[in-house]
Amino acid sequence: MPDPQLGADGRLNHLLSIDGLPPDTLTHILDTASSFLKVSDREVKKVPLLRGKSVFNLFFENSTRTRTTFEIAAKRLSADVINLDVGRSSTAKGETLLDTIDNLVAMHADMFVVRHASSGAPYLIAKHLRRVGRKDVHVINAGDGRHSHPTQGLLDMYTIRHFKRDFSGLTVVIVGDVLHSRVARSDIHALRILGAGEIRVVGPKTLLPSVIEHLGVRVFNDLAEGIRGCDVVIMLRLQNERMNGALLPSAGEYFQCYGLTPRILSLARPDAIVMHPGPMNRGVEIDSAVADSPRAVILSQVTFGIAVRMAVMSILAGN
Amino acid sequence: MPDPQLGADGRLNHLLSIDGLPPDTLTHILDTASSFLKVSDREVKKVPLLRGKSVFNLFFENSTRTRTTFEIAAKRLSADVINLDVGRSSTAKGETLLDTIDNLVAMHADMFVVRHASSGAPYLIAKHLRRVGRKDVHVINAGDGRHSHPTQGLLDMYTIRHFKRDFSGLTVVIVGDVLHSRVARSDIHALRILGAGEIRVVGPKTLLPSVIEHLGVRVFNDLAEGIRGCDVVIMLRLQNERMNGALLPSAGEYFQCYGLTPRILSLARPDAIVMHPGPMNRGVEIDSAVADSPRAVILSQVTFGIAVRMAVMSILAGN
Amino acid sequence: MPDPQLGADGRLNHLLSIDGLPPDTLTHILDTASSFLKVSDREVKKVPLLRGKSVFNLFFENSTRTRTTFEIAAKRLSADVINLDVGRSSTAKGETLLDTIDNLVAMHADMFVVRHASSGAPYLIAKHLRRVGRKDVHVINAGDGRHSHPTQGLLDMYTIRHFKRDFSGLTVVIVGDVLHSRVARSDIHALRILGAGEIRVVGPKTLLPSVIEHLGVRVFNDLAEGIRGCDVVIMLRLQNERMNGALLPSAGEYFQCYGLTPRILSLARPDAIVMHPGPMNRGVEIDSAVADSPRAVILSQVTFGIAVRMAVMSILAGN
Repeated sequence: MPDPQLGADGRLNHLLSIDGLPPDTLTHILDTASSFLKVSDREVKKVPLLRGKSVFNLFFENSTRTRTTFEIAAKRLSADVINLDVGRSSTAKGETLLDTIDNLVAMHADMFVVRHASSGAPYLIAKHLRRVGRKDVHVINAGDGRHSHPTQGLLDMYTIRHFKRDFSGLTVVIVGDVLHSRVARSDIHALRILGAGEIRVVGPKTLLPSVIEHLGVRVFNDLAEGIRGCDVVIMLRLQNERMNGALLPSAGEYFQCYGLTPRILSLARPDAIVMHPGPMNRGVEIDSAVADSPRAVILSQVTFGIAVRMAVMSILAGN
Repeated sequence: MPDPQLGADGRLNHLLSIDGLPPDTLTHILDTASSFLKVSDREVKKVPLLRGKSVFNLFFENSTRTRTTFEIAAKRLSADVINLDVGRSSTAKGETLLDTIDNLVAMHADMFVVRHASSGAPYLIAKHLRRVGRKDVHVINAGDGRHSHPTQGLLDMYTIRHFKRDFSGLTVVIVGDVLHSRVARSDIHALRILGAGEIRVVGPKTLLPSVIEHLGVRVFNDLAEGIRGCDVVIMLRLQNERMNGALLPSAGEYFQCYGLTPRILSLARPDAIVMHPGPMNRGVEIDSAVADSPRAVILSQVTFGIAVRMAVMSILAGN
Repeated sequence: MPDPQLGADGRLNHLLSIDGLPPDTLTHILDTASSFLKVSDREVKKVPLLRGKSVFNLFFENSTRTRTTFEIAAKRLSADVINLDVGRSSTAKGETLLDTIDNLVAMHADMFVVRHASSGAPYLIAKHLRRVGRKDVHVINAGDGRHSHPTQGLLDMYTIRHFKRDFSGLTVVIVGDVLHSRVARSDIHALRILGAGEIRVVGPKTLLPSVIEHLGVRVFNDLAEGIRGCDVVIMLRLQNERMNGALLPSAGEYFQCYGLTPRILSLARPDAIVMHPGPMNRGVEIDSAVADSPRAVILSQVTFGIAVRMAVMSILAGN
């Protein structure tokens, strides 16, 4: 079956997952983001590329941060942005997801940014749009269940490329709750496609998926071992609900074993960068002395994230 | 007493109810909507007719769907749209409705889109605006209690005119919870003003108002009888709170008696169209085999609804 | 220590508090507001002064009214406005306030409008922005704890100047819950800076701060005494939570002693104006016969408030 996010001509029609994208498509997105980065530095931070287009934020799962980044990106492209409070909307009144989509398409929606607790919801929408023949309406996955968070993966790749230029010789380590992390999945796929030298994951056994080696990564349970000699350290956020759950003893013990401190970071390469998808739990997965150090490029990730989202929207809209 | 929605010169100053509007006014709105329908198909779906105007959505009763359609319509006219979260606002702090209105007028509001659980709330606002001499501020009723939902009535008329051209020979049936439906009331008024041939309502006795015949409609309790030979079938949404209430045995039994199935629909004219104000309860008031058939024009209603709301806003603003 | 809201060259960099501002700065804001007042009367109520700028509304304490006035002001300056639902956002996920700010700055925020229950929160943000060297990002205090509400103070001064021309000979009385009122504090500072002749406060002993005389005001517990001969009467809103609390017997008894009736108002000068920050509790702190009389300039305050907020935003942005 063809990848539903690519058109017959290989053009990007939706952004659902990094898995399955050709390397050229990824590189094209990153290159386009690079040009948008300059827009955000101008006096008037707007370009008219999406003027008159309607972008709908459909966040079935709440995430103010991510929704805001898409809202900013769309407004800088001059789109009209409509935030749907889906929790209180027609879906809550018993309407099916696809009826909601059909209704919004009938209102001339041009793009859906979808966040959903169920893996695959954005795929369902994209397949439906194909079935009803609406190739002009586009879907961006803003995080679905544990599955995928492709714009986060792309902005992480932008960040690594910005600071390290080339992927081929790099050793990248991802630390934390890999089991529940769509960020980790998206990063691993992107790193493989772009040809990173070595990909490692580190975490307690309870937070590592059992099939993880199949993704072509090296697995460590000890942070000191896993971080040794790395060029890039990607820390994952520890979700609040894990902190006192069955999978972990406590936030404090987690920090003892897997928190990134200056001492542990000194085992990585001297020019290693530290990344985090935010929001950070200081003192849980990362020590403030690391988070506030020059080696942390966490705020650069945020800035690049706006440019990457502008790039994806612009490419989908056919620019 | 003169109709508060019409100015001394007969021009539309507010849209409060379809009841009382001259046929020419209705036709003028539908003709204007027709020109806006083309705007939504353009590459840049915006016209500058309301540029610099401030449209306030005052939804005292929650309805994400309806609010969104007005927001889209206003943004396509280039207005600034402000959504007031009225449940958490000053009204909740003990301020009166009219003090809230006075405050927003003092902020140079140009238009209020009002949804309220109480019949007559938009009238109260319109009368107050006349009393304080603000003819330049306009009110659109987006649904008040069981009373009126005029833009829904207008978009239904647009839909019927689009598919059937002329009202004079048509038989139109409205099926369901007529008692609680402002949609039914607005449709009946509009159909009479535009000269529909015959108007019928169908529903269980408990869901039909006792004075319904006075509105000039034929009343049926049996769906098969009521639908026979009709050109247009308008299904009403069954509100969740009725499904297991005192007025109805159950959603399942309702579907047995009043759900629109292909078999029942075959009693209508072969070219009959099926309408629904949305959101649909599939398997309650309508069978999916009907909802997804070519005879259902439910998504066309949604598209026309944006154009009709743009037309109303544009006419009120004096264009 | 230098005032963090003023740059080294004395230019306004943030608006945190009226206390500490030079008289010229206040007058400059009022004069600028005067020119913006004309914009709101034009057919197209927009100017492009903040086009492409991103204004973030950060309301950690809910206030739909105040948020709306800033949203309108920013949109009339053509800014992009992003309302952050901070209660549900990253702060709720354990992120620190300053990490949230750093993230929004990394998204190229130009201005923060901050409402917070803690006195000093806007200062904390302003100091942080200076520490990280971002002089191009500006903070407006939209009310912090009991401390300050500078735009309310400014719009009150605009209103007094509009109706009374000159401050020097004026007697101004502030009536009500002075203890908990940031409005009262801001008004007192502004009136002193602008050289008002005499400033009085009136209220029950339990609602007057013990150090109030230090601010250079005359204190009265009896409304009739305090209002005698005044040119300007500023009524404060009685917060709902005080009405039946330990500090006051009841709303009814409060009205008996401190409610503004026509009879009490007749003790002020015949041309005295009555102000109120809104939303009003009719029959609690103010009688409807006063609120609806020509001497009440409460709705003018609202209109001037938009112009004053446009002026502050425009000046901060360097226009």
